[in-house]
Amino acid sequence: MKKHNFFAGPAIVPDAAINETIEALKNFEETGVSLACISHRSKQFGAVMTEAQDMFKELLSIPEGYSVVFVGGGASTQFAMVPFNLMKKKAVYLNTGTWSSKAIKEAKLFGDVVEIKGEDFFTIPKDFEIDDSADYFHFTSNNTIYGTEIFKDFDCKIPVVADMSSDIMSRPIDVSKYAIIYGGAQKNLAPSGVTFVIVRDDILGKVEHKIPTMLDYRTHINKGSMFNTPPVLPIFTMLQTLKWVKANGGVAGMEKRAIEKSTMLYDEIDRNPMFRGTVAKEDRSRMNVCFVMQEKYKDLEKDFLDFATERDMVGLKGHRSVGGFRASIYNALPVESVAHLVQAMKDFEKKHA
Amino acid sequence: MKKHNFFAGPAIVPDAAINETIEALKNFEETGVSLACISHRSKQFGAVMTEAQDMFKELLSIPEGYSVVFVGGGASTQFAMVPFNLMKKKAVYLNTGTWSSKAIKEAKLFGDVVEIKGEDFFTIPKDFEIDDSADYFHFTSNNTIYGTEIFKDFDCKIPVVADMSSDIMSRPIDVSKYAIIYGGAQKNLAPSGVTFVIVRDDILGKVEHKIPTMLDYRTHINKGSMFNTPPVLPIFTMLQTLKWVKANGGVAGMEKRAIEKSTMLYDEIDRNPMFRGTVAKEDRSRMNVCFVMQEKYKDLEKDFLDFATERDMVGLKGHRSVGGFRASIYNALPVESVAHLVQAMKDFEKKHA
Repeated sequence: MKKHNFFAGPAIVPDAAINETIEALKNFEETGVSLACISHRSKQFGAVMTEAQDMFKELLSIPEGYSVVFVGGGASTQFAMVPFNLMKKKAVYLNTGTWSSKAIKEAKLFGDVVEIKGEDFFTIPKDFEIDDSADYFHFTSNNTIYGTEIFKDFDCKIPVVADMSSDIMSRPIDVSKYAIIYGGAQKNLAPSGVTFVIVRDDILGKVEHKIPTMLDYRTHINKGSMFNTPPVLPIFTMLQTLKWVKANGGVAGMEKRAIEKSTMLYDEIDRNPMFRGTVAKEDRSRMNVCFVMQEKYKDLEKDFLDFATERDMVGLKGHRSVGGFRASIYNALPVESVAHLVQAMKDFEKKHA
Repeated sequence: MKKHNFFAGPAIVPDAAINETIEALKNFEETGVSLACISHRSKQFGAVMTEAQDMFKELLSIPEGYSVVFVGGGASTQFAMVPFNLMKKKAVYLNTGTWSSKAIKEAKLFGDVVEIKGEDFFTIPKDFEIDDSADYFHFTSNNTIYGTEIFKDFDCKIPVVADMSSDIMSRPIDVSKYAIIYGGAQKNLAPSGVTFVIVRDDILGKVEHKIPTMLDYRTHINKGSMFNTPPVLPIFTMLQTLKWVKANGGVAGMEKRAIEKSTMLYDEIDRNPMFRGTVAKEDRSRMNVCFVMQEKYKDLEKDFLDFATERDMVGLKGHRSVGGFRASIYNALPVESVAHLVQAMKDFEKKHA
């Protein structure tokens, strides 16, 4: 029985991408060799790598002067790579939750951090000033744990760096307003093990400290992400996902789907007297929908999780640091899965309210 | 048509491991979710991670006081992580080729490097002294590019660090003689994307400089390789390979196979008047067998590659920095594939000599 997959990451990827991966594991592009065993220097994998980079550029309308690289290590490694490559003295970080906090911790190893933070992580701070004497401004566009999302591209006098691990390819962005966009691919794109980085080439090479080779973006740009052995399998699956995104209306199509799905679910959360959303309405994420039982029904939290599990839904438990429920409804999650969850909420209401 | 796979890496993994991976991509352990889409925090993947670490320890008889961690970034990232974690002032590096040279380049960012190097990379330097005032001694046990291998575990007064990317699990080793053993898993264990590190816990925490979180081995030890999202898919496949190693006689069984296969091939190279081995006999790798045409037949190099390709063999071209031929005959390569190559060399001899 196939489940409705609400995991926060690693998370659902399109069936088509999985099926193509399975076929490639049997025989990769008629080479007679499994994708698991093919040299990354083979012309067939070389073509996959190039196509994945090109399709990233095409889907996000990435302008000239930017490179797309794929590396290992996850966004957590980027938390150090960004300051390694950009920090001369000082950077501004918008702290919107767990992931931003981790990025800030790493940045502090390299220089001063001006931290912008709201009263809590259920609202995105607004109307703040960005110190334009800093080397760069960093923010996390979507907070997977608290369920907030920043939909705007900042207009900023200093380079802007964004961790878009969990909302990349879910809506159009104006890449020209960014110096670096990075993220783990295991939410909207691929199985875990590959990290994407979009980087404006002219931002690099300006720090004076030494950068270990693998942590220097230029290493990967210069070698087309083939300086060392790349994570072949996740990159292959990612390419299949990108093709699926293109076939389904590109990032504009993904945005439409995301609005439809998130609206459907938030509407039910707001209507249903048993539940409430935890995030300020204007900052609600379209990727990670966080909600809890109303105080009156608090004791039924586990019951609802069981109720959902019985109805073939997985991954609805809120992050251990927040509790409650979290429905991650990334690009590849079908509208039907959201409808299924909404129906379960209605049925649960009938049963208890 | 399935090929005989002599790729140097990513390289052949056992059919059983690929088949298990395919089944898990369809439905991971009856979860109703693909392995590509399962949370790394699920109890099912947690069990995979634990079993992979335990089986690593079991197969290599790793003593108490050591941890096994799985991270991304490849051995190339380890070239920086080792000095980040161990270098106070000075380290000794044995330079046996391309990979050692890269490791040395990174180590020099952190301190002084005493380099031990032979006249060329076709022989392993012997009878050298290791400066025991250094923080550690680093060597690369198997050189995939030049085709040399070091079979001994060094007795050394200072901590020993080894890059065993390409011969891990191919023979028993005495782990108690090492402080750190690391490697990319994409040669003898798994698809690319995961790096293994065996580390003696008490060696850590002695440097004074700050270590970025993801580059600090303690981060991964403390969280059982789950500090951030690990490369789920390659780790799953690696576990299947480890099970296959165990079912086939463990590392002692692998050594027997490796001796049988490499002897068969080197014997033919030495016998066949058209070919010659490039490495000093006592230093010949059991994993990467490098050879060239004898001077007299030099013009037939491309012909032999074509001849082998027609006979369904892939990956025999020597590394671009060395030329000639390289047959990588890792654990999972069947004896039959080596016999097939030997027969092709005999047939080529009949045709031309």
